[in-house]
Amino acid sequence: MTITLALVQTHPRFLALEKNHAHAVELIDSTDADVYVLPELYLNGYAFSNLDELARTALPAENRYFDELLAISMEKGIAICGGYAESARGDAGPTFFNSAFLIADGELLVNYRKTHLFFRETQFFTAGDTGFSVVEWRDVRLGVMICFDWFYPEAARALALAGADVILHPSNLVLPYCQKAMYARAVENRVFIATVNRVGRETNTHGDDLTFTGASQLVSPSGEYLVTLPIDSEEVRTVEIDPTVARSKQINEFNDLLAGRRPEFYR
Amino acid sequence: MTITLALVQTHPRFLALEKNHAHAVELIDSTDADVYVLPELYLNGYAFSNLDELARTALPAENRYFDELLAISMEKGIAICGGYAESARGDAGPTFFNSAFLIADGELLVNYRKTHLFFRETQFFTAGDTGFSVVEWRDVRLGVMICFDWFYPEAARALALAGADVILHPSNLVLPYCQKAMYARAVENRVFIATVNRVGRETNTHGDDLTFTGASQLVSPSGEYLVTLPIDSEEVRTVEIDPTVARSKQINEFNDLLAGRRPEFYR
Repeated sequence: MTITLALVQTHPRFLALEKNHAHAVELIDSTDADVYVLPELYLNGYAFSNLDELARTALPAENRYFDELLAISMEKGIAICGGYAESARGDAGPTFFNSAFLIADGELLVNYRKTHLFFRETQFFTAGDTGFSVVEWRDVRLGVMICFDWFYPEAARALALAGADVILHPSNLVLPYCQKAMYARAVENRVFIATVNRVGRETNTHGDDLTFTGASQLVSPSGEYLVTLPIDSEEVRTVEIDPTVARSKQINEFNDLLAGRRPEFYR
Repeated sequence: MTITLALVQTHPRFLALEKNHAHAVELIDSTDADVYVLPELYLNGYAFSNLDELARTALPAENRYFDELLAISMEKGIAICGGYAESARGDAGPTFFNSAFLIADGELLVNYRKTHLFFRETQFFTAGDTGFSVVEWRDVRLGVMICFDWFYPEAARALALAGADVILHPSNLVLPYCQKAMYARAVENRVFIATVNRVGRETNTHGDDLTFTGASQLVSPSGEYLVTLPIDSEEVRTVEIDPTVARSKQINEFNDLLAGRRPEFYR
């Protein structure tokens, strides 16, 4: 069995939702694939300076942009994953999450809220409350994590233990560590990992200069970098994989990766 | 505060305990350092074909080789870590562990039994029952794991959570994955990791051709490869580090590595 993944590395403009969304749709329309992965916050941009700015752009998981993605996914029979600023109703007013959706065949299959917030995100967003889950779509088991979740091996591990073949990993990376470290994440879990980063530069009123590092990549369960995109320009790249390769956790005739865990000694 | 680590990459000869030990002592004597790290099974060699072969060479944690290391460590005021085949008394006869010792100032501070056995080891050795612990010696917090433990991020994580500044990692690696992946292990835990591998080739009666990959290395908490040894020859290399660098888990002003864990979502 094979599926085609599209890594859609874009350059979102801060708070330009219309424009960012239209551009993403255009890229999806012009590419032939099964699963499309957009960056973290593909819709909103990244460089929030304060909670008010976030409050003005955040949307509920039912919104007109998703309506369009739902329709496209239904029409084309595809899956689309990407990130957005989510506004959720709380007891004491709205709560904001750095979220990622997985929309397929006209349904919102996953609305994942980022578990590990990075840097200034901790000041505006609420840490995710959904945890890590895997959905099966067309016999492919897809898991979602967002950007800085990579840093905690427990995130990819939770997805692997939940059965993920492919981890979809929308990102807004400003440091170079992740791309290099995903070698270990892929190998230690024997999963595919599609890290889709953005490019461009944003600044906020705190003086943070955020230059995103691009280099979106797909790493195989054996640690092969099947695709690496440019560090500084938009690009869509497709790659065909057999996701079932990730289902054999047999490292050799004596070692099964997951059966060999010894949680009684873990913390 | 600084300490000097010595990475002692040797070429043990199978079952030649006298010779392997004498050579290790000679290398320790000729090098000036605080903490010496030898490979996994530095004493016995690796390529066991059956349980009988292992039974003939395995030793209890009190043995004359360790007596000499205890004396040397006392005399020189140093710490020595390395691996050996351990024979332990069990209810139904002896049990064999792939173990690593940490001897310092005339004391056996750690006798760690390998948690994750690799390949044919699973047929002769019993999976370790000690778990992961950290000892403080001269204000340095030292943790020990062995070879294939690297593959499970839970191992280095358990040591980091127990407060390790430096993970001593005696190894007998035959594949090239570990050396590359330790970048992630060091960065994700903000610890130093001294992976000390062996060189040479051994075969067993099963026809396994075991060519060890050398390339012992020391990786810093920020993922810098401070030392990398040759892939195919013995070498001792010393490097001075400030182990307290590993104590700051502050990634930036908003993110503390360990405080940022969210175990409620881990499996």
